[in-house]
Amino acid sequence: MTDAVLYGYFRSTAAYRVRIALNLKGLSADHRFVHLRKGEQTQPAYRKINPAGLVPYWIDDDLELAQSIAIIEYLDETHPQPPLLPPDAKGRAIAREIALVVAADIHPIGNLRVLNRLIDMGVDEATRGAWSKHWIETGFDAVEARLAHLPGPFALGDKPTLADICLVPQVFNARRFGVDLAPYKRIVALDAAAAKLDAFAAAEPGRQPDAE
Amino acid sequence: MTDAVLYGYFRSTAAYRVRIALNLKGLSADHRFVHLRKGEQTQPAYRKINPAGLVPYWIDDDLELAQSIAIIEYLDETHPQPPLLPPDAKGRAIAREIALVVAADIHPIGNLRVLNRLIDMGVDEATRGAWSKHWIETGFDAVEARLAHLPGPFALGDKPTLADICLVPQVFNARRFGVDLAPYKRIVALDAAAAKLDAFAAAEPGRQPDAE
Repeated sequence: MTDAVLYGYFRSTAAYRVRIALNLKGLSADHRFVHLRKGEQTQPAYRKINPAGLVPYWIDDDLELAQSIAIIEYLDETHPQPPLLPPDAKGRAIAREIALVVAADIHPIGNLRVLNRLIDMGVDEATRGAWSKHWIETGFDAVEARLAHLPGPFALGDKPTLADICLVPQVFNARRFGVDLAPYKRIVALDAAAAKLDAFAAAEPGRQPDAE
Repeated sequence: MTDAVLYGYFRSTAAYRVRIALNLKGLSADHRFVHLRKGEQTQPAYRKINPAGLVPYWIDDDLELAQSIAIIEYLDETHPQPPLLPPDAKGRAIAREIALVVAADIHPIGNLRVLNRLIDMGVDEATRGAWSKHWIETGFDAVEARLAHLPGPFALGDKPTLADICLVPQVFNARRFGVDLAPYKRIVALDAAAAKLDAFAAAEPGRQPDAE
């Protein structure tokens, strides 16, 4: 793979996931930044690259690809070491379940474009804040219940997987929205374990070139 | 696998995806129904089974599993024939991308629990209807643009994949919400191709025992 490009935004949790995966694989990419708060994703310059106007967006010699989990599974298939999914079907299933609770049941509902739509509908700031917290808490309740039956320190044991790759950025986002993380001991513990790894730490929003 | 159980609801598009996958694999399951409109998913009887209160929920001898795409990937790994993903990494990536546009960017935002939350916030019926249509159209725009570069009749050629498994139920849902499908010629064509297959037809909501 030469000259792979990743379009992202420092605070996009979906782009953050892909950054972690690249770091865990030891892969580099040309990181380009789309300023979502300034609305660059709706401008013709970016729409010409990705008509859907979303990040992350991956471009390499073989394909262009949206959707963070599709990108991460693709990286895992094309660069198998270290694996981002457990070796057994059951472990892989549970890793994907946890990843999808974040990627489908939490993140899209509290995403910037949805919050912007709520603003257009006249929903006030306090109600929007409660909205974001509600979906994070509902999703974290499901994940924490699942993690109670699994060994730590990461979601599925001693190695980070797709589950941690999705959870850690969501914890960052939960803190931004003021979610009380006290009930989520296992999630907080895996986030702390991940923070000790360079692959996770270097992917943090505050450490990206476009961070404010 | 003996005595696998699938908890679903006839009109849940996520449960509908798993029904199609089971049918394509020729697998049977004990289908049990949770009446989402009546709120059975919030009752203690179902919360004891799946604390998250969502469908689909899969139980077999080896694991309990939420999240339709995790369930379908698990079925595909444990019962490889016929495959539900293309043989090459690029094809698999694109199939997952399309599946995730539906499963992350469309479905969760227009899901019943989100619409119920909007009701609680005092959002009127017309605005809720426009909300549902908006996210379906935005997602279908992205999928239609992607499909323009791919051979038919299905999303990725002559065999249905995870992409079609996710798109067909979303087309059903789009029709329910009165989305004008005229701009989505490729999506409509693959839906028509799928309808000719027993595996898709037998999974339709109207043909489930709990259909109203």
